[in-house]
Formats: sequence, C-alpha cells, structure tokens
Amino acid sequence: MHIPPATQRRVVIIGAGFGGQEVAKHLAGAPVDILLLDRNNYYGFWPLLYQVATAGLEPQEIALPTRALLRGIPNIQFRVAQVERVDFDRRVVATDQGDFPYDEVVISAGTATNFFGLPEIEAQSFDLKDVPAAVALRNHLITCFERAVGTDDVAERQRLLCFVVVGGGPTGVELAGAITELTRHVMPKDYPALDFAQVQIHLLEATNRLLAAFPDRLGRKAQRTLTSMGVNVQLGVSVTGYQDSCLRFEDGNQLSTATVIWAAGVKAAALATTLPVTRQRGDRIPVTPELQLADRPEVWVLGDMAYLEGPDGKPYPQLATVAMQQGRLVARNLVRKLRGKPLEPFHYFDKGMMATIGRRRAVARIWNMNWSGTIAWWLWLGVHILYLAGFRNRVLVLINWAYSYLTYDRGARAVFATTQRADDTL
Amino acid sequence: MHIPPATQRRVVIIGAGFGGQEVAKHLAGAPVDILLLDRNNYYGFWPLLYQVATAGLEPQEIALPTRALLRGIPNIQFRVAQVERVDFDRRVVATDQGDFPYDEVVISAGTATNFFGLPEIEAQSFDLKDVPAAVALRNHLITCFERAVGTDDVAERQRLLCFVVVGGGPTGVELAGAITELTRHVMPKDYPALDFAQVQIHLLEATNRLLAAFPDRLGRKAQRTLTSMGVNVQLGVSVTGYQDSCLRFEDGNQLSTATVIWAAGVKAAALATTLPVTRQRGDRIPVTPELQLADRPEVWVLGDMAYLEGPDGKPYPQLATVAMQQGRLVARNLVRKLRGKPLEPFHYFDKGMMATIGRRRAVARIWNMNWSGTIAWWLWLGVHILYLAGFRNRVLVLINWAYSYLTYDRGARAVFATTQRADDTL
Repeated sequence: MHIPPATQRRVVIIGAGFGGQEVAKHLAGAPVDILLLDRNNYYGFWPLLYQVATAGLEPQEIALPTRALLRGIPNIQFRVAQVERVDFDRRVVATDQGDFPYDEVVISAGTATNFFGLPEIEAQSFDLKDVPAAVALRNHLITCFERAVGTDDVAERQRLLCFVVVGGGPTGVELAGAITELTRHVMPKDYPALDFAQVQIHLLEATNRLLAAFPDRLGRKAQRTLTSMGVNVQLGVSVTGYQDSCLRFEDGNQLSTATVIWAAGVKAAALATTLPVTRQRGDRIPVTPELQLADRPEVWVLGDMAYLEGPDGKPYPQLATVAMQQGRLVARNLVRKLRGKPLEPFHYFDKGMMATIGRRRAVARIWNMNWSGTIAWWLWLGVHILYLAGFRNRVLVLINWAYSYLTYDRGARAVFATTQRADDTL
Repeated sequence: MHIPPATQRRVVIIGAGFGGQEVAKHLAGAPVDILLLDRNNYYGFWPLLYQVATAGLEPQEIALPTRALLRGIPNIQFRVAQVERVDFDRRVVATDQGDFPYDEVVISAGTATNFFGLPEIEAQSFDLKDVPAAVALRNHLITCFERAVGTDDVAERQRLLCFVVVGGGPTGVELAGAITELTRHVMPKDYPALDFAQVQIHLLEATNRLLAAFPDRLGRKAQRTLTSMGVNVQLGVSVTGYQDSCLRFEDGNQLSTATVIWAAGVKAAALATTLPVTRQRGDRIPVTPELQLADRPEVWVLGDMAYLEGPDGKPYPQLATVAMQQGRLVARNLVRKLRGKPLEPFHYFDKGMMATIGRRRAVARIWNMNWSGTIAWWLWLGVHILYLAGFRNRVLVLINWAYSYLTYDRGARAVFATTQRADDTL
C-alpha cells in the first residue's frame, strides 16, 4: 500500500462516521500519522436517511465525500477499505485493501440492524441501515402503488397498500409519519384511479410506549399525532415471523402485507463480534471512562459500539451527539497520552433529542424542556440543517424541503433499477 | 389488469421518452383512450446523463416521474411495464404486466447501445444507456482514483489512471471533456498524494473527424479545445477487443486501461428486432412520411427507432428534437385519421445541435450559424435548462451548475453500492 513510512505514532481510525471523523479532525496538526478507514468514500448524515427512503431527498444530498471533509489536513490519510480483523497482539488492522499496522487504534464502526434472531424478517423486510437500503425501500414503496393500480384483485391490492413499520423509536416514528404524508399528499395526485381509503399504515411497538428515550409526555404526544394522521399505532405487539407476505404476531394474529420495515433496534457493527473482547447487550464493547479497553490502553472504542454507563447507571444512548463528544475526547486523550499527561474521563453534555412526525409536527426535548408541534418542528429543521455537512448539501436540502412544504410533493420519485453488472475491471 | 372498459379507440404508446410523451400530451382531450407504457416510472433527460456519470448531477435531478407530467389529463393511463412483443395481427401489446389490446399503437422505445458485434466490449466497457449505467460509471471513475492512491505498483496505477472514451460524437466529446475537468479540477483536491501527470484521457474515433453531424469547422474546433485541455484525441482508430484491461486496436496496438467508455453508436431498442418488419441500418424501422408502417396504417413508429429519409436523401438524425416533432405529428395524424381527414407528412424544423466540452467551452450550430466558446456554452446552458422538465429539477440543476462553476468542484462524489438483494415481496 502507498503509505509513507511512519515517523510518528500511527493512529488508525476504523469508521468515518460521527465519532471517527471527530477524532480525525481533532487530531489535525497533532504529532501523529492518522489513517482513517471506512468502507464507504462518504460520510452519511443518517438522521435524514428516512427522507431518502420516502422520496424527499436524494442520497448525495445527505452524503459528503470524506476526502472533502479532510482537505488541507496534512497528517491524515483516508482509505476506502473493509476492515476484516483487528489483531490486538500484532497491532495490525487487516482489510480487503491490505494490512495497516498501528500504535493506537480507534474503533468506531457504528451499528448494524438488530433483527433479534428473526431470519425471516432479516431476509424479507426493509431497514434503514445504509443508502442502498433506503433507496431499495423508496423503490419498493413506489412500486407498491404502481402494482396496486394495475391489479383488479382486491386482496392483492390490500396486500400492496398495507405498510408496516416495526419499532416505535425515533426511526420508526419518523418513517411512519413520512410514509403517511407520502401516501396522503403525494400519491393521490399520481394515482387518481386508486382508492386511498384502502391504504393502511401500521406502527408496531413491543413495549407499552413510543419514543422510550423521550419523556413520557412526548411519547404520548407522538402517538396522538400519528393516530390523528391515520397511522394505526399498536403498542405491546411482538412480531415473530414474516413469510410469503404474511406477518405473524406472538398472539397468533396475522397480517397480509408486502412491506415490513424493521426499525426495532440496532446492535454494534459486526466487527465487534470478531474482537477478543467481552460484549454487552447489543454487542456493545465495555470501555473505561477514558474510552479505552481496560486491558488494552492502545485500543479506543467509541460511539454506538462502546458500552459505558453514565452517572445514572444506564449506558449512554446510541446517539450522534454521544459519538461526536466521545470522538473529541478520544482525540484529546490521545494527545494527553503522548504528552504523558493523565487522561480525562467522559462527561456527556446532553443536548437533548428530537423526532419529526410530519408537516409542522415534531417532538423535542432540548435544554431539559419538552417541545412539540410547530415550534419543535422548526427546531428540528434548524438543528438538522446546522449539523448537515457541506454548504451545497444544505442549500439543496433546504430547497427540497421548501419545495415539499409548498407543493405537498416529493421530488425524488423516480425508480432507478440498481445495476447488476459487477465492475470486473477493478 | 385494472383498465376501464374502452369506449373509444384505444391508443397504446410504447415508450415515454421525448417522442412518446409528446404523442400522449398532444392527445390530451382527444376522443381516444391512451395507455402509455414505459419500463421506467420516470422520464429521463438523457442529454445531461453524462453529468451524472461525472459526479456533477444527481439522477433524480434529470428525471421526472412520468405520472407527474401526465397529471390532470383524464384520457391517459400510464403503466410501468416491459414490452415483450407486439402482435400486429391480434393487435395486442404483450408485457410483463399483462396484455393490452390496441386499435392504434405508437412504437417509440428509443435506442440501445450499439456494440457492433464486439462482445468483449459489451461485457467490460461502460456506456451511457441509462441511469444505472451512468451511476456505475461514476462509481467506477471515483474508485479508480481510490485504488490508484492505494497502490505502489506503477503499472497498476497507470492502468487505473488511463481513461478511454470510444466514439467522437456529442456523447463522446462531452464525456471526454467532463472527465478531464473532473480529473484536472476536482480530484487533485481529494488526492493530494497522487501525481496527476500520470492521468491519461483518450478520445478515440474511427472516422477522420469529431462530431460528424456538425459542420466541419465545429468538429475541428472541438478537437482543438479537447487537445488544449489535455485529451489525447485520436482519429481513424478502430477498436477490436478488450480483455483483462487490455484494449486492442485494428493496427495491432494495445493499451492498458481499467476504463473503456463506449460511446461509438446506438441502435434501435431491442423491441425492433422482435417485430415482423424490415429493418434499416442500426435496426431502424422504415416508415412512411406520415410515420406509419407502409402495410399497417395502425402502427406508428417514431423517433430514434424510425427510419425516414429527409429531402437530402439522408435519414433524419437520432435527436430529441426529431423525436419530439415526430411525436406531435403522430398525435395530429391520429386525430386527423379519426376525423377522416388526410394525414400530413413529416417536415423537420431543424433547431440545430450543440455539444459542451467544458467550462465556457462548447460548440453549437443554431439558426444555421456556427457558435463556439463562451457564447456557445451559454446557449447550451440556456437550452438545456429550458428543455429540462420540472421546476424543481431546473432549480436544483442550476444550483449544482453554479456550485461547480464557482468552486471548481463536483458535489455528487459519494459512491453508493448498488443493492444486490432482490425485492422478493413484489
């Protein structure tokens, strides 16, 4: 590999998401050689991925090439590579693009969808794990309407127009809301021959409330809002299987649907299971308050992959804000370690959380206050534009949002077949 | 299929491109039931597809859902369907979504890439036949740079940084220019470690000039412009094969390259070869001046698929303007036929042609005058924004162009893996 000889300590960062990127940026100019690895060449702003899945935004608008973010930082190199193993003893990161030795390694590979051992669901449902998954869901949703308008079979049309979202966290709530708006406002203009009273949208949650991480009042508010929009919210419902368009429940009930979207949970990226470490719930890796492995101080783990309990005894939530703050701490601690200074423990500054439900409908907890309705929606808009990387992306997203808001339309409704041909020339 | 009983003459239009769409729109309100079929749910503005392939634009920005174009026209239905056969005797269009009977059928399925019987090229090269092909090319171009920066092997880096465009028509010229600008202006910022003097861009043309359909002076101008930008333009060069990254020429020469882009020609869509008709060069179907089959007056063929000679004895060129004018004539002739009036022959109003090469560099023939340089480039911009369908698309494309122009950057550089999982639920 074309890596210049390391004259300084080599830091390899695995994963260029919210956390890994903060480490890289905050080590700019530090006396270390940084190698940032990611399987993709871009940084995705995942909080807006559900809008790609519902034809509101284009993938490129929520993605920024990682190299663009790192321009002008001389001590960083970036490689697109799939990490296969981390050899803690030899201190080498093994990838499909070769092996990279390290002195310090930062593991921040994020999460994967947790199907909780339901292989039928994993094989047949949609999720929001990455851009191709979101595009596949968008294509599927639109194709359901295309097929529904072309059939005379009532049961078949019912199956095609029944949309089930499993999981009442922010992703499930935002998806159910966005699909409802797509169905109520956009599709009737495209399919005047279709009876939209047949459309069913279900949001299923296994526990007894939506948005478990939010204050109870906001969870109930979200439930009322979704119900008023026409979503059938069902709490205390557990899914057990899905085959041949038949979704089965623990209580023996069944539902015929062509669309199950799995938003019921995440687990640490598969890399976690390949490491010689103990693992907590959801494959998260326990770390010290300084974000190192207890017995390997040169291995740092952060973000969604790390398991660290806060002052309340509960693990820190798997949120972008946690990952970003942990990324900055890892960068600071790496420099303190180099300089022989004592490391600092992680302290989380809780910036709150928010979820949008629809037009002028959102819930938010910010500055320890609860917000809902129009004001929460504006807050949501502002925060997401602020955190979205790249001037061009901000402008394009704002234009798309303004267009959707004013016209009750969604622009990105073209269904592009995905290429099948492998790129044999590389 | 959920098609209301036809009470009027049924017109089935195959293909919703530039031509088919004009037929549909100009039959709005006429006493016919129109069924428009296309394998895609969108209308693509193909003249800008090369910008998708070179990271300048996003696919959705050059695509408009066909249903959006047809909103509010009561006598039109649209179906996403792949046409498999047209049975002239039974008067039925057979598709993967069922059979559709017709009284009049309009065949306007456009073109496919013509590989002139070179299977190696077909298997290994890239082309611009549709959106997935353009996205595959974009991903490939960016991945070539990612791989090149990661290798120490000089020959391998040379192979990865050698880009060959075959075909000196407008598509080849525009692609060669856009790849050159991507390479010269954008990539060096992302890959500071790479020596860009190693990049080679070849434009190969089998005849003795570029832009054969343009006046000779503009072909020479385009050649000088491309050469000044660093493109190696070679005329009179014929490609015979391509395997294991080795491009072979008729004169025995070879070139090691990971990227061959085939822009050497088109032929009528494969549907043409399934019809019981004689075919001209490039599988085009001979039609009467009224755009019917001579022996089947209820079968209309137009656009790139139709073969009709103009007053100069040469077939009309395969251009959007020809297809659109022919589409309008077919609509008019269909109504005249219904009313028992004599049909009108096709007269082409030549609006000219243009090709862009780079920043403030284009060639155009408009109003029988030759234009080049900055003024041609502005004309090109204006015409393409004007013809691009959809207010939202126009705004987004203009913003992307302004961004690229001002920053020398290209926004759409993220490489999204294409989904492999089949949609089993439909």
